[in-house]
Amino acid sequence: MPATMPIAALSDMLPGQEADMFLLMSSKEQLTTREGKPYYRVGFRDGGREVVFPIWDNSPWAAECRDKWTPGAFYKIRAVYRETNYGPQIDIRKIREVCDADTADGFDPTLCLPQSRYNPQRMFEEMLAIVRERITDAALRALVEKILIDNRDELLRIPAARHNHHAFAAGWLEHTLSVTRTVIYLADKYAEYYDELEPPLDKSMAVAGAILHDIGKLRELEQRPDGTVYTASGALIGHLLQGRDIVRETAAICPLPPDTLLRLEHLIIAHQRLPEWGSPKPPMTPEALLVHYADDIDAKFHMMAEILRNDTGEGPVTSKKNALAQQIYKGE
Amino acid sequence: MPATMPIAALSDMLPGQEADMFLLMSSKEQLTTREGKPYYRVGFRDGGREVVFPIWDNSPWAAECRDKWTPGAFYKIRAVYRETNYGPQIDIRKIREVCDADTADGFDPTLCLPQSRYNPQRMFEEMLAIVRERITDAALRALVEKILIDNRDELLRIPAARHNHHAFAAGWLEHTLSVTRTVIYLADKYAEYYDELEPPLDKSMAVAGAILHDIGKLRELEQRPDGTVYTASGALIGHLLQGRDIVRETAAICPLPPDTLLRLEHLIIAHQRLPEWGSPKPPMTPEALLVHYADDIDAKFHMMAEILRNDTGEGPVTSKKNALAQQIYKGE
Amino acid sequence: MPATMPIAALSDMLPGQEADMFLLMSSKEQLTTREGKPYYRVGFRDGGREVVFPIWDNSPWAAECRDKWTPGAFYKIRAVYRETNYGPQIDIRKIREVCDADTADGFDPTLCLPQSRYNPQRMFEEMLAIVRERITDAALRALVEKILIDNRDELLRIPAARHNHHAFAAGWLEHTLSVTRTVIYLADKYAEYYDELEPPLDKSMAVAGAILHDIGKLRELEQRPDGTVYTASGALIGHLLQGRDIVRETAAICPLPPDTLLRLEHLIIAHQRLPEWGSPKPPMTPEALLVHYADDIDAKFHMMAEILRNDTGEGPVTSKKNALAQQIYKGE
Amino acid sequence: MPATMPIAALSDMLPGQEADMFLLMSSKEQLTTREGKPYYRVGFRDGGREVVFPIWDNSPWAAECRDKWTPGAFYKIRAVYRETNYGPQIDIRKIREVCDADTADGFDPTLCLPQSRYNPQRMFEEMLAIVRERITDAALRALVEKILIDNRDELLRIPAARHNHHAFAAGWLEHTLSVTRTVIYLADKYAEYYDELEPPLDKSMAVAGAILHDIGKLRELEQRPDGTVYTASGALIGHLLQGRDIVRETAAICPLPPDTLLRLEHLIIAHQRLPEWGSPKPPMTPEALLVHYADDIDAKFHMMAEILRNDTGEGPVTSKKNALAQQIYKGE
Amino acid sequence: MPATMPIAALSDMLPGQEADMFLLMSSKEQLTTREGKPYYRVGFRDGGREVVFPIWDNSPWAAECRDKWTPGAFYKIRAVYRETNYGPQIDIRKIREVCDADTADGFDPTLCLPQSRYNPQRMFEEMLAIVRERITDAALRALVEKILIDNRDELLRIPAARHNHHAFAAGWLEHTLSVTRTVIYLADKYAEYYDELEPPLDKSMAVAGAILHDIGKLRELEQRPDGTVYTASGALIGHLLQGRDIVRETAAICPLPPDTLLRLEHLIIAHQRLPEWGSPKPPMTPEALLVHYADDIDAKFHMMAEILRNDTGEGPVTSKKNALAQQIYKGE
Amino acid sequence: MPATMPIAALSDMLPGQEADMFLLMSSKEQLTTREGKPYYRVGFRDGGREVVFPIWDNSPWAAECRDKWTPGAFYKIRAVYRETNYGPQIDIRKIREVCDADTADGFDPTLCLPQSRYNPQRMFEEMLAIVRERITDAALRALVEKILIDNRDELLRIPAARHNHHAFAAGWLEHTLSVTRTVIYLADKYAEYYDELEPPLDKSMAVAGAILHDIGKLRELEQRPDGTVYTASGALIGHLLQGRDIVRETAAICPLPPDTLLRLEHLIIAHQRLPEWGSPKPPMTPEALLVHYADDIDAKFHMMAEILRNDTGEGPVTSKKNALAQQIYKGE
Repeated sequence: MPATMPIAALSDMLPGQEADMFLLMSSKEQLTTREGKPYYRVGFRDGGREVVFPIWDNSPWAAECRDKWTPGAFYKIRAVYRETNYGPQIDIRKIREVCDADTADGFDPTLCLPQSRYNPQRMFEEMLAIVRERITDAALRALVEKILIDNRDELLRIPAARHNHHAFAAGWLEHTLSVTRTVIYLADKYAEYYDELEPPLDKSMAVAGAILHDIGKLRELEQRPDGTVYTASGALIGHLLQGRDIVRETAAICPLPPDTLLRLEHLIIAHQRLPEWGSPKPPMTPEALLVHYADDIDAKFHMMAEILRNDTGEGPVTSKKNALAQQIYKGE
Repeated sequence: MPATMPIAALSDMLPGQEADMFLLMSSKEQLTTREGKPYYRVGFRDGGREVVFPIWDNSPWAAECRDKWTPGAFYKIRAVYRETNYGPQIDIRKIREVCDADTADGFDPTLCLPQSRYNPQRMFEEMLAIVRERITDAALRALVEKILIDNRDELLRIPAARHNHHAFAAGWLEHTLSVTRTVIYLADKYAEYYDELEPPLDKSMAVAGAILHDIGKLRELEQRPDGTVYTASGALIGHLLQGRDIVRETAAICPLPPDTLLRLEHLIIAHQRLPEWGSPKPPMTPEALLVHYADDIDAKFHMMAEILRNDTGEGPVTSKKNALAQQIYKGE
Repeated sequence: MPATMPIAALSDMLPGQEADMFLLMSSKEQLTTREGKPYYRVGFRDGGREVVFPIWDNSPWAAECRDKWTPGAFYKIRAVYRETNYGPQIDIRKIREVCDADTADGFDPTLCLPQSRYNPQRMFEEMLAIVRERITDAALRALVEKILIDNRDELLRIPAARHNHHAFAAGWLEHTLSVTRTVIYLADKYAEYYDELEPPLDKSMAVAGAILHDIGKLRELEQRPDGTVYTASGALIGHLLQGRDIVRETAAICPLPPDTLLRLEHLIIAHQRLPEWGSPKPPMTPEALLVHYADDIDAKFHMMAEILRNDTGEGPVTSKKNALAQQIYKGE
Repeated sequence: MPATMPIAALSDMLPGQEADMFLLMSSKEQLTTREGKPYYRVGFRDGGREVVFPIWDNSPWAAECRDKWTPGAFYKIRAVYRETNYGPQIDIRKIREVCDADTADGFDPTLCLPQSRYNPQRMFEEMLAIVRERITDAALRALVEKILIDNRDELLRIPAARHNHHAFAAGWLEHTLSVTRTVIYLADKYAEYYDELEPPLDKSMAVAGAILHDIGKLRELEQRPDGTVYTASGALIGHLLQGRDIVRETAAICPLPPDTLLRLEHLIIAHQRLPEWGSPKPPMTPEALLVHYADDIDAKFHMMAEILRNDTGEGPVTSKKNALAQQIYKGE
Repeated sequence: MPATMPIAALSDMLPGQEADMFLLMSSKEQLTTREGKPYYRVGFRDGGREVVFPIWDNSPWAAECRDKWTPGAFYKIRAVYRETNYGPQIDIRKIREVCDADTADGFDPTLCLPQSRYNPQRMFEEMLAIVRERITDAALRALVEKILIDNRDELLRIPAARHNHHAFAAGWLEHTLSVTRTVIYLADKYAEYYDELEPPLDKSMAVAGAILHDIGKLRELEQRPDGTVYTASGALIGHLLQGRDIVRETAAICPLPPDTLLRLEHLIIAHQRLPEWGSPKPPMTPEALLVHYADDIDAKFHMMAEILRNDTGEGPVTSKKNALAQQIYKGE
Repeated sequence: MPATMPIAALSDMLPGQEADMFLLMSSKEQLTTREGKPYYRVGFRDGGREVVFPIWDNSPWAAECRDKWTPGAFYKIRAVYRETNYGPQIDIRKIREVCDADTADGFDPTLCLPQSRYNPQRMFEEMLAIVRERITDAALRALVEKILIDNRDELLRIPAARHNHHAFAAGWLEHTLSVTRTVIYLADKYAEYYDELEPPLDKSMAVAGAILHDIGKLRELEQRPDGTVYTASGALIGHLLQGRDIVRETAAICPLPPDTLLRLEHLIIAHQRLPEWGSPKPPMTPEALLVHYADDIDAKFHMMAEILRNDTGEGPVTSKKNALAQQIYKGE
């Protein structure tokens, strides 16, 4: 690709525009035309847009597509962007796998994955601000802050889950920040309502728990170019117990009073509430109850919004085949 | 009771003070002493305090207690208040059942029942203010306002449930107001997050649904001096369907667009989510999902706070025999 | 189609006979021959017979089939009927979509759908006769009669369900009439056995409940040429509650004593018995219990008969993949 | 008891009448009066009436009651019958345990147990008549007839179950006859409706199955004066398998075609339908399905009638603590 | 196949070797090449090896393959064995269906089915030795021995189940022998631990039960060349009850004391423990409990080993789509 | 207690013998005689025997019993031992609470609790011998040995559970040793059967897992004189996770290869198998599967033996109210 050509994001391209792009090959299927001729349907994507289009038998790329292109690999592609009746597509002019030198030109594999709509750095800063402002218990604040800062780079990237909800880069941050805000609302409210609770509702604990409830995802999941997979320890132990491990390990450095540590550990392993969702204990403290609900509503609302966004069927309701396993009303 | 004596609330009495009080007889049990002698243990209460004490065989009230005093009846009692090792008690000087004339002196049977800690009138006013401010859809606002105002007197009194949570006078108001505030928080938040939803999240609907989700309690429950009971239609039909009836009947006068009415009806019957909790359909709209969660967290938090308040056992956790059917952590 | 040709029902055709027919296109699939050539397999049907046959690549109808024929549309077809090793087929001579004028020639789309084997009008008359003879409570009789007569046209057509049982035109009538007869048998029997019941078993109520138990299907389902679909209100509210609505609305005109109305409403919402089948309450009256069982046995027997009729597998039992999710014995 | 005195049934006595009676002692409890004095409350019964009354400390029967009277034993009692505010009672004049000679005077222990309201002999004759008329398959008829006649004496006495329904003498006959009649109704009806079934619905099989579905109770239960108990084999094997054994053993003498025998065996073990109710297989034939439903409705209706008859609580519905584990509506 | 050629087992062939073999055609699928040309993929197997390879359109066997070769049929095949990148394959030189005369040359259809890795005769002898040594109760020993010897030929062949575990020839023997050994271990151990049990743990019963727990498979399953199928009685009655029948029928000849017979019958029907697994009763004796567990662990361990052996996916864990419906860890 | 008197164990006393004993007061109930007089029924026990007897109103110990004796406290008692119709009893001559000095005379509170029938020291030695012989993986052996030796004193005393099984001193040792022996049997057997497993079945892992599966009981339970209670961390976290913690903490000193550590951690948290029994993951390795089953059979067999030992009811089966929630057969 000798000629200089501006490097653009696929998601920024306008119809007719030609540019160089760094793209992830997201899919490659062998199909047969109505006339019985084989062809390929291939997909390429970056963080904000995906194009899917055929490579016909007589395409100049046919042989290369069949023999070399690999889903999950990254390519530098010069192409013209088009919007057709079959959706957005590209006409490939040049294509090669990315090489080390491309990093200097801005290639970053995570930019090719689906992204949170919010800026990760800004979400991270907001989360740190919440820690400093709302966790008034100094020992707890130190522990949470240390965990966040020690894992900053990864937390800017990891998704909240593999499939069900917030399954995109920085999904952990987006989901956790939302849960934390809801917990702040609920903790303020119920601390005031039930001011006779003894010990009183511990807002520091509730906020720390909201931030750390899914921290075990750091060890449960591993991000690869072609998707998120479970680590061996994630599959055999699970993020609830792994999140508690992170807290215990950090508490060896930033010590907490025993009862505080116990309540925080409990909150993390109990936040899924039901045994069949993986929690060995139900929420047994007011703070654990609040985090469970704030987490559940955020995940379920996200799923419902996704189902409504992706539904393409007819009729006033969606099908039942979705993450919530029920029909959703689309309106008439 | 000829001599004038100030009329006081039991819950305001100080040790040693003598006064006239209007009290509900809340319990009467026949027991036997260690020596084999029968006696009675009786309870009297007003909205804020309950006293339980023995009437021994040789008490001047023994015969009257055995033959006449009836749990569930109201009495005018002149007595001295005491605080003993066995809890608060009274020494009865005079006692008679209340009569019509006592109303003039301030007797109100509902003041003898357990009460919300918040002022019902003020909660009702706040709820009306929310209706006027947050339900921006005029038709929906008119309908909600009419239902509230038409049933004002009852809504100031009814509990939220018979046993499980907010089972006291004005419990419906306390619970519903809390649910409504949470729904406002969540609806504002998710309307902003998921601004691409089509149709957009309907905040008017969410708030109207929060206020009306339990409106069927008006027909399901009946308050009697000795407790809340199910009506025949409450037992055979249930408050979810009865709440929908109230909406449909009111909509005959304050009409709603068909899709708005349908979504509101659905929200009410779906707010318990699970079939085994009585909902024939799960929440199929974003607004119904929010109301379900706001309701569930408010009920469960109330239960947990009650369990912690009432527990008298030893050890760091409560027993499992409570409304949540699980142990709760009390701290060490 | 200029030449006059007798119009015949497909289900009446004899092998070799040629006639004009009004048919529904019931299916169209694109397939590939063993040699890799694409072709279509199409289906046409009327109320009593279905033919399925290939349109080969070299058929005169190949282009029209590919480009124009639409499943769910109605066609006037001149064809010769044949019975082959592959089942009944037709040789198409002429084909066009039906037009308004065809109504005059007897075209009725519902005649093309699967039908009850019983005459709808006669079933309806029998149901009315039962109402007049067996509902001796005058108010109840008036209400049931009004609902039947007001909805006569639709009730002659609607199926009992979308898939599971009696999923054909007039299926509601066939199923409901059968349930009603069983309830008459059971109510006569148990009223005699348990003559000490207080209040006595109400035979009028049992019969009225049998007739109205599924009346909500009027609002839950909508029949279209290509099948039965749920209405929006059917999906969000469901036929149990919608059936109760019909009763309540009619009772505003044909009033019932309150306890009679309550028992009838309860019977309708309770007739599925289990929460997971959509009933918010279980049957709490003897009449509701009888209607539940008469309904359940009729639906389950229909399913078992259908499974046995449709099974084409080998071996002494059917597969488990059927409406009852279990094996059925076919005999050896 | 030298003096001649007419022997009467307790259930036929009039207030003030004195007579000799053969009674079962049905209960004996030691209690304490309000004053701390111990006394006994004893019950005696025959098949139609039960009396419960105190034996005070100063009664002439006090010592004998305390030391000798035994619940479950039978007594010849001379007494005066009274009806009091506390229910029917007797004044005992003479009392002794029954002896062998009493049989000659008409003592029959089973007459002291609760009885079916129908005459056992007549029910048995009716059942035989049904066998002869409705089981047209000669081999099947011979087998059923043999089983009934071989076990005539026991079948006239055994209950249908230990607790849940028809738990009284001849309860098996009453329940089985009712199930059989319902099966005849349903089999006639569905054989006509579904005349295309292949093989056709076998009415002989359905009726034989109805009569024999609970025949294993002969081996599962054992009647003792103080109640019905499970035999060891009843507890370890259960009446479904034991009923099938009776059929297999009888078929060794009255042979059936293999497929007929197999279907009958299956019907018996499948008639409870659900694994958790003890059926290792669900009903897999139309005849088994009919018998299951006819049995279920008869048992459930009996339970509901019993619950309504025995309820003494207040309010429009019964409590949930009953054989159906749900509230039943009593009316207002 | 005139020329003499050594007859060999496919599982003994070396690459490049040519021989005559008796093979079962285990599969035949019609597929299409990338270029749209149809071809067949066929499988042949004997007891120890399976080859799967394509028959291309231009193969000399193409027509015969398409028109005559039938999965489930047995063939005498002369072929050269090869090991390729696509796994083991054969080049067919001659092929014909087996005929009666082939039996003389050693053809035995069961040798073509998957086999236990252990020698059936030797396993059977070992089982008999266990009977003679470990069942010290003479009556029980006689009964077990008779059942084994009467059914020797079949027991050498039948699988333990159709699909889930030990689904190969002599699988019953392999599984039953393993269960019996574990029961011997457990019975010895717990008889010593709990020597105060009254009656003492009956080791003869435990061993007899282990050997006979699945004896009903003799009647439940039928082996055919193309796989194992359920008999009609297997589908309608099931092997638990059928195994008990075999015991009862044999006990008519080799009588057992009633309590011994009852405990053995119970053990057989209870060995699956859960109603949803087909047991109408849970294990109610110590011997039944031991056999249940020894059976369960053997079946589950076999499943897990099979899943690990057959898994071909990536990542540290298998998929959930297997007989245990859960992920299994493969290591990293 | 000035006079010298030999100190004896209650469980060694002979009828008529007098001695001094150290006993735990195990129960104290206030009851009323038939004549209405109050008395106490008290229990005292040591590790091998319990006596329960009345303290009548006129006993010299009556006042002291009422006012001072406390269940859960330990006493030095001089008494005569008797065996009566009401079971073993003692006549108290002298009684005082134990004091520090009594330790010198051999007082050890744990000797008063129910004990394993096996000698704890010997069981512990046997367990160490197994570790040294059967855990051939040196790193794993070092870790297991360290955990055992570090916790020797406690492991000699703790029960296996609070109620369900092996709920007595050294119950952990008795149960764990039994599980370990069964695992050795099963691991030897299946390693030989399934020698193709890759990686092979790890016997060291299986034995280590058997020994450590319940090691978390060290932190979950706390033994007190009046019974075993849950610690706060036991209630909020649970012994599965706490056992894994012990392993992880020890592995920081005695390191394991990562995959070995992961498999051991997994085995511990998965050994209960079902989420509702507290395991967040099911057994996903062969070793974990074996330990689960060996544990389950040992616990269930113990429960069944206890139920049989403690049953005092009539009839051939026990009641259902026991730890297994089912009837057990006692024989006839």
